[in-house]
Amino acid sequence: MRIPELIRRKRDGESLGEREIEELITAYVRGEVPDYQMAAFLMAVYFRGMTEEETAALTRAMVRSGEQADLRTVGGVTVDKHSTGGVGDTTTLVLLPLAASAGVRVAKMSGRGLGFTGGTLDKLAAIPGFRTELSVAEFTAQIRRIGLAVTGQSPALVPADGRLYALRDVTATVESIPLIASSVMSKKIAAGADKIVLDVKVGRGALIRDRDRAEELGRLMVQIARRAGREATVFLTDMDQPLGLAVGNALEVAEAIRTLQGRGHPALVELCLELGAEMMRLAGVEADPDRAKEILLKKLESGEALEKFREWVRAQGGDERIVDDPSRLPAAPFVQAIQSDVDVYIRDVDALRLGRCAAKLGAGRQRKGDAVDPSVGIVMGGRVGDRIERGRPVAVVHAASREDLSAAVEEVRQAVSLSREKVPGRPAVIARIAGVDTFGR
Amino acid sequence: MRIPELIRRKRDGESLGEREIEELITAYVRGEVPDYQMAAFLMAVYFRGMTEEETAALTRAMVRSGEQADLRTVGGVTVDKHSTGGVGDTTTLVLLPLAASAGVRVAKMSGRGLGFTGGTLDKLAAIPGFRTELSVAEFTAQIRRIGLAVTGQSPALVPADGRLYALRDVTATVESIPLIASSVMSKKIAAGADKIVLDVKVGRGALIRDRDRAEELGRLMVQIARRAGREATVFLTDMDQPLGLAVGNALEVAEAIRTLQGRGHPALVELCLELGAEMMRLAGVEADPDRAKEILLKKLESGEALEKFREWVRAQGGDERIVDDPSRLPAAPFVQAIQSDVDVYIRDVDALRLGRCAAKLGAGRQRKGDAVDPSVGIVMGGRVGDRIERGRPVAVVHAASREDLSAAVEEVRQAVSLSREKVPGRPAVIARIAGVDTFGR
Repeated sequence: MRIPELIRRKRDGESLGEREIEELITAYVRGEVPDYQMAAFLMAVYFRGMTEEETAALTRAMVRSGEQADLRTVGGVTVDKHSTGGVGDTTTLVLLPLAASAGVRVAKMSGRGLGFTGGTLDKLAAIPGFRTELSVAEFTAQIRRIGLAVTGQSPALVPADGRLYALRDVTATVESIPLIASSVMSKKIAAGADKIVLDVKVGRGALIRDRDRAEELGRLMVQIARRAGREATVFLTDMDQPLGLAVGNALEVAEAIRTLQGRGHPALVELCLELGAEMMRLAGVEADPDRAKEILLKKLESGEALEKFREWVRAQGGDERIVDDPSRLPAAPFVQAIQSDVDVYIRDVDALRLGRCAAKLGAGRQRKGDAVDPSVGIVMGGRVGDRIERGRPVAVVHAASREDLSAAVEEVRQAVSLSREKVPGRPAVIARIAGVDTFGR
Repeated sequence: MRIPELIRRKRDGESLGEREIEELITAYVRGEVPDYQMAAFLMAVYFRGMTEEETAALTRAMVRSGEQADLRTVGGVTVDKHSTGGVGDTTTLVLLPLAASAGVRVAKMSGRGLGFTGGTLDKLAAIPGFRTELSVAEFTAQIRRIGLAVTGQSPALVPADGRLYALRDVTATVESIPLIASSVMSKKIAAGADKIVLDVKVGRGALIRDRDRAEELGRLMVQIARRAGREATVFLTDMDQPLGLAVGNALEVAEAIRTLQGRGHPALVELCLELGAEMMRLAGVEADPDRAKEILLKKLESGEALEKFREWVRAQGGDERIVDDPSRLPAAPFVQAIQSDVDVYIRDVDALRLGRCAAKLGAGRQRKGDAVDPSVGIVMGGRVGDRIERGRPVAVVHAASREDLSAAVEEVRQAVSLSREKVPGRPAVIARIAGVDTFGR
């Protein structure tokens, strides 16, 4: 195989064969194809795209580059949940114990967040003592015992993705639909769960801003799962504004606890019910979505979901006292509220600006390997359309220093716009893609 | 400067600033920007192009990456001539002594050919004893003495081009107009000549197949020269069929001698007159093109051009006896003519196939650093439109082995198509671009 010829064919818009893609990835992982040829190939893919067949072949080749987790010892159907990442995305912390309390076996392997704010592991690591790295034996045993486990992904799974992602990150080739799809799906397939719920974020604060492209990504991932013998459902959800009110690791844990206590923002609750009902359907627990949502609501109201969260924290070595006393979570030394002198409605919150602001405060990483500060971040007074009474905070900033605080207060002011007039709210869930045929069009 | 951000901006179709491009090239040459980022950048340039300003900035940055030749000691205006490369392109060997015999000071620095057939240096190296590497002192002294010198380009000139070209070659990013323009023009500017005649080949056997793209390249190079304080004229010439009859190094030297003896093919002669007249205009020798061509024709007829060729060969250490006795040139051991049983016209000759065939015979390089065989190649019986009388050769193949010979004979048969009907000839010169305003539209 001549690599320059392969790059040229992709550059000229041709489709590559399954075996060619497999050989390319194998040779790359072996170090036989240098990074500069892979970088040129990735940029050609950025411009020319890949067919579904090519993307599936790329995904397969990436899965084969390493080990695959075997979750059969769990016994029964396992469900994974993945989000493409956004600002204030507290879903996992609420949804996983909620679904587990309803009988779903949840098996989530997670990567470290690379975006503005931390990933799921960073949020969990804000809980004192919480172990985010479990062995495969610990992982499966915990799912058997309490129906739920989350761990960092073993580097032995999909080593090709690690190398490709690092290269994409420094060559401006991250935002490519087939490259995102193969990166996500190779990890999900290697991680071993039978069923996968994917939350594709769309909007200013997401990797993908455009609804059509998000839909394309969603359809592609559903097809790749099908070709790999897995079943996946994709939800497109809004990331034009932050999802939850909190943006920052410990702050989001606190919001998750409030939500599990039945005091969550309706938008976040609704998203968790939608995704949870689909997890129940996929797990074979309850096929009817309305009935499933009813069950989930009861689990929230009865406190069973919160108890499952407590059980989960305990199982992974965390300090369960945070459940009843969130003040035990790391707290930032400097806190300031932004208030309004009059009653106002939130007209807009720019998720990108708010996310960048949180990252500057230390809640996210600027580079791979950076440490995150679990305590810092922003808590909004509401989502778009919500009314903020005079004297109540529009937002509260939590910072590590006085300088950070005043800079962030200014940035939050610019990210948020207010209105004296009533503003319509915006739903969190935009669409659902479950197989090609059931999507609504 | 953040390189991924710079790549992203080019990827998204933005124009980069002069200083950004300069910093990128400087950092790349210093090894501070890795090949994989440059490869992604080059592929983004392939898709998005560059403005004239960006290309000029890139060219300048490349020139500044190394030394620049100082030809002021030559005294008077120096003219360089460059071809983008094609099959059977014997022009330089004829044109340079022809123009020098008419009083033009010709200063040509040449790269080794990377295409199907050898470059000018490979052709000259087919002359026993000919030295293709002169010191700068030898180079300028020879121009002063006989009005003409050709040498391989010093690696101290434009080191950035050497690295960039090698990278483009293995990442399928060669065929980009701004990258070709900056590569050619940086070398021409660093080589020091005041005036530059550029022969841009168009067609199947050329890097650029499409006339519009060739015109775009030509205009761009003229503008880059202007911005660098040089004057350049571009000719677009046909490379759909080979230019001369001979394809192969010693075979082309022999054709050049025949042409300088006044027995050349009219198409090759016409091209040399066109380019020669322009060199005379640029050198300030004769401004009127018709008058210039008359002078050049007389130099051919009187034998003065041939004498200048002889003087040139002698000056660079070559065996000048080849001029009167071309059988002293390297000769291939296996020769076979392809004949026609009837009178025919040449309908088509595929320059790409013929060039590849010559390269397989050993006349060109498959890879950088390969040796070429000076003796092998193909001599056509005519150009498209020419009549071949029954029993006369349509083509003659010169090979190093019997196997090569029979394979090449078969390939030549496929590259050439014949017709019993008369076929119109095709001119070699397509258009001329001298500054933006004078081009005919």
